Amino acid sequence: MSLKSVKQSFEIPAFSFTCGRTLPVRLGYETYGTLNEAKDNAILVVHYFSASSHCCGKYQESDPLPGFWDGLIGPGKAVDTEKYFVVCADNLCNCGAKNPNVITTGPMTVNPETGKPYALDFPVPEVLDVVNTQKHLLEQLGITHLKAVMGPSFGAMTSWQWAVAYPDMMDAIIPVIGTPKLPVWGGFNPLQYAIKVAKIDPKFRRGNYYDQEEQPTDTLRLCLEMMNVAAFQAGYYERTYKRDVSADRACYESVLGQASFEDKLDAIVELSVPFVDLNHWLYTCRTCLNYDVSRPYGGDLDAALARIKAKVLAIPSRLDVLHPWQFVDWVTQRITWLGGNAECYPIDSDLGHMAGILETFRFDHKVRDFLSRL
Amino acid sequence: MSLKSVKQSFEIPAFSFTCGRTLPVRLGYETYGTLNEAKDNAILVVHYFSASSHCCGKYQESDPLPGFWDGLIGPGKAVDTEKYFVVCADNLCNCGAKNPNVITTGPMTVNPETGKPYALDFPVPEVLDVVNTQKHLLEQLGITHLKAVMGPSFGAMTSWQWAVAYPDMMDAIIPVIGTPKLPVWGGFNPLQYAIKVAKIDPKFRRGNYYDQEEQPTDTLRLCLEMMNVAAFQAGYYERTYKRDVSADRACYESVLGQASFEDKLDAIVELSVPFVDLNHWLYTCRTCLNYDVSRPYGGDLDAALARIKAKVLAIPSRLDVLHPWQFVDWVTQRITWLGGNAECYPIDSDLGHMAGILETFRFDHKVRDFLSRL
Repeated sequence: MSLKSVKQSFEIPAFSFTCGRTLPVRLGYETYGTLNEAKDNAILVVHYFSASSHCCGKYQESDPLPGFWDGLIGPGKAVDTEKYFVVCADNLCNCGAKNPNVITTGPMTVNPETGKPYALDFPVPEVLDVVNTQKHLLEQLGITHLKAVMGPSFGAMTSWQWAVAYPDMMDAIIPVIGTPKLPVWGGFNPLQYAIKVAKIDPKFRRGNYYDQEEQPTDTLRLCLEMMNVAAFQAGYYERTYKRDVSADRACYESVLGQASFEDKLDAIVELSVPFVDLNHWLYTCRTCLNYDVSRPYGGDLDAALARIKAKVLAIPSRLDVLHPWQFVDWVTQRITWLGGNAECYPIDSDLGHMAGILETFRFDHKVRDFLSRL
Repeated sequence: MSLKSVKQSFEIPAFSFTCGRTLPVRLGYETYGTLNEAKDNAILVVHYFSASSHCCGKYQESDPLPGFWDGLIGPGKAVDTEKYFVVCADNLCNCGAKNPNVITTGPMTVNPETGKPYALDFPVPEVLDVVNTQKHLLEQLGITHLKAVMGPSFGAMTSWQWAVAYPDMMDAIIPVIGTPKLPVWGGFNPLQYAIKVAKIDPKFRRGNYYDQEEQPTDTLRLCLEMMNVAAFQAGYYERTYKRDVSADRACYESVLGQASFEDKLDAIVELSVPFVDLNHWLYTCRTCLNYDVSRPYGGDLDAALARIKAKVLAIPSRLDVLHPWQFVDWVTQRITWLGGNAECYPIDSDLGHMAGILETFRFDHKVRDFLSRL
């Protein structure tokens, strides 16, 4: 029996973006467990790049897979829904804008002033804007203090941003496979690449493709592929996408031909295509690319980290190429040096970055213990 | 005083590709040092992906930079040109087809039968074909046995291929930052990406762009960028491409805007654009993607490695994402297990893959010692 997932939604009639624009916003969210009378048992979970507020459970028992962190969240699990009230919201510009289980506001949303999709007229959200939408939701739920903010990858980035922006709001943060500023290497690959490919694709039309017959689907496919590649690492790919030198022909006959291992990845990527909007994908890329908690402090990372009052349990993955574990390790040491309370718990997995999402068994005991001591 | 570099060329009137096609081929080469009377002091150096036969020295003293491995090759250096005769040839489909110091045959070459460039009608070379062009050159120079075959990256791949295909031809190989089959992860990123972007770009026209007004230059730029990113690693990028959150504007105003760190990489990439032909780049990508020394043995890597008679000194770089050092380490252990003679000497550098090209000081003493014992 899985936890029963129910998608709800909340509205912010006039949400102010950091850039100065103000727009109506509506986003989905899911909750698990029960908010206690003191309203002090809430944990905010933030989803990763291409995920949604579906952080655990199933909508129906027949769903093929549960929410993305089901291994970690549920009755008796590390994030025990019999003790904690778990809240998870869909991000602004959520990539899965075409997924019926996602409720988001972004470029695909119809601008009430024009009756047409915003497309690239939608403001570029900062991670701080994502934090602020979640703060609205918590206020609507009557929650003024959180036990913890946690999440993998983009969820980790958001957790760091929460702790810097609103240091009194939570007891702890648990950033998993994520850093307090996006490493530029992981910014180029695969995020900036995605934006550059879209610019080359004439079907992209600077984001105005919604009413066109030809859609920029090849660019979307390549974006999804590049993210998959970067999110794993060489060893995992070597065992998953095997060469077949005996059967392959096309890749030897033409530079545009493919090997079977390339076809295999194409087929996996294709499964996601129907659910993703390219503009939303590119917006999420740009939001990540721009992410740096030190921005309000003129780029002084020490100034940002020194604001953190939450206890920090940072969990990087040693073969992660997007958010290198060495950087996470350095950040936790730096926080301790600055008088804070931070711990780094690196995990080893051939899945690289994705270990923080797919292999929660490598750190669930650590999370359980950490939460029990708050 | 630098060594004096002189470009020469050799022709193979009817070169037989592995795929069965036969074409006239003309390639450039450079030599350093003197071939002794016994003709047994030759070392074949093979260049990396985007380099050329200019492996050391300068054409003119005013050249801003010497050849790519000048730190390793020269009088009194680890590959001592007072003892050894160094030969280095331009690859088939050399990326720098527009560089006046490169002589190559590939898609940009005029097909004598049609009077037009081959474009994608040029056969896809295998690394074995590159080896065979070099074998022709050595025969023309009267060299029937090599002291060693060595090179970084593509040069390492070619060294492995030499040792498997012609095991009696050399005393030793020194593959630096390269594996005997391309890891698929490093095949997708950045090699297959390059080919996929070209397919999306209407200016590419399936390679028939030579007589067109609009050139697929944006795709070429992105190809060059993706290679630069993959060839280094996160730490190096972090210190080289710094964020400037105070000065940046465009990246916060539009999803298509860029941060200054992105502009900086664009500017570096732009320096290479005039010298590179996109088709040649894509061919080199496909040649690498297809590379697996076990192909003639049905994919049995043990069968390929067991053929090697040369002593092997393999030098991987620990933060290399394209050719993981763990794989190189495993291969050398496997060769020893199979009765061969192989040693792995991993280096540590924040340059990742590029350490094998730019930081020869990390392994030149090892190369000197290894060569002195042959």
